[in-house]
Amino acid sequence: MLPERLNKLVTLLSRLPGVGEKTAQRFVLYLVEREELVRRLAEELAVLPAHVRPCERCGFIAEVGEPEAPVWCAICRDGKRDPRLLCIVARVQDLLAIERSGAMRGRYFVLGKLLSPLEGVGPEDLPLETLRRRLSEGQIAEVLVATPPSVDGEATALFLARELATAGVRVSRIASGVPHGGDLEFADQITLGRAIEGRKDLL
Amino acid sequence: MLPERLNKLVTLLSRLPGVGEKTAQRFVLYLVEREELVRRLAEELAVLPAHVRPCERCGFIAEVGEPEAPVWCAICRDGKRDPRLLCIVARVQDLLAIERSGAMRGRYFVLGKLLSPLEGVGPEDLPLETLRRRLSEGQIAEVLVATPPSVDGEATALFLARELATAGVRVSRIASGVPHGGDLEFADQITLGRAIEGRKDLL
Repeated sequence: MLPERLNKLVTLLSRLPGVGEKTAQRFVLYLVEREELVRRLAEELAVLPAHVRPCERCGFIAEVGEPEAPVWCAICRDGKRDPRLLCIVARVQDLLAIERSGAMRGRYFVLGKLLSPLEGVGPEDLPLETLRRRLSEGQIAEVLVATPPSVDGEATALFLARELATAGVRVSRIASGVPHGGDLEFADQITLGRAIEGRKDLL
Repeated sequence: MLPERLNKLVTLLSRLPGVGEKTAQRFVLYLVEREELVRRLAEELAVLPAHVRPCERCGFIAEVGEPEAPVWCAICRDGKRDPRLLCIVARVQDLLAIERSGAMRGRYFVLGKLLSPLEGVGPEDLPLETLRRRLSEGQIAEVLVATPPSVDGEATALFLARELATAGVRVSRIASGVPHGGDLEFADQITLGRAIEGRKDLL
């Protein structure tokens, strides 16, 4: 019933995360009536790959500058960051969340994925070479593994700790426990178990 | 933290229906890593306005053909449709739903909106001139108002019935009642009231 051209656009839009065919069709029907929005979206998307790319050093998002210059993100270029601390995250979204907390003084390394036997992600799929190259630059004294406290996140953290055991750096892990404002009554067993295992002296 | 260019794209994408700023940011972070998808989306969007537009006759989606030819949709061009029956719908999505039912032999007219005092939509916002021009083409004997059985939908249906009273056509309304497969126990009072009011003789 819809023109073939629209079906192609529906297929492309349904590849966005969390967007099924029905939602994509809703987007397209909305766009058909909004020429100005479509024009601006097309323009922005057309120039995106030339202007924005993953940072060559850490995998975060970077703006492309001079043709010959390395593509480094704002954090890698920020001279005020602690060069001794490297925080490993699974996704760019996690990096943004940690930045919002304001608690991280160092720089980052984005893995892009977690080890996951179920999804067929093995050690060979992690960017270990890039990570080792990053560590071989020297300066880094501590690697803080901030993968999520899930099964895959914990497995990846343990794997990285073993891989980096000979790199001469301290490898630490973010704390896991009852979240701020959380209710003990509604915390799950594993979270409570971790909160107790990871207890700290008060004074 | 993100490059300015990405924030612009987030703003544009958050104008899509049901997409907030967080979802739009998720789309953008996904797109940054997928150059091929971005390129194809940009291409499709760039040519969209030149190839697809609302049908000049009914408001459904039409493919643009020869430069001088009127832009008519597949349904308006379909000679096998009953020219005496015109179905008025609020949105393109409603037209698609009715087409899927296979129960409509005639053609359509898409209002684009419903009367809504709360949202400030008055009679002057409805495409009444276009609708009257459509009826003045002759042939049409019955107008079936298929706006939804909601407060705004009913108000719009009643308004249209009065507006078209002098047009010399029969104005009908889709039936409202307990849906197919629906349970009387869980039907709301208004639906049940309508099902009883709209009862039909069995034999």
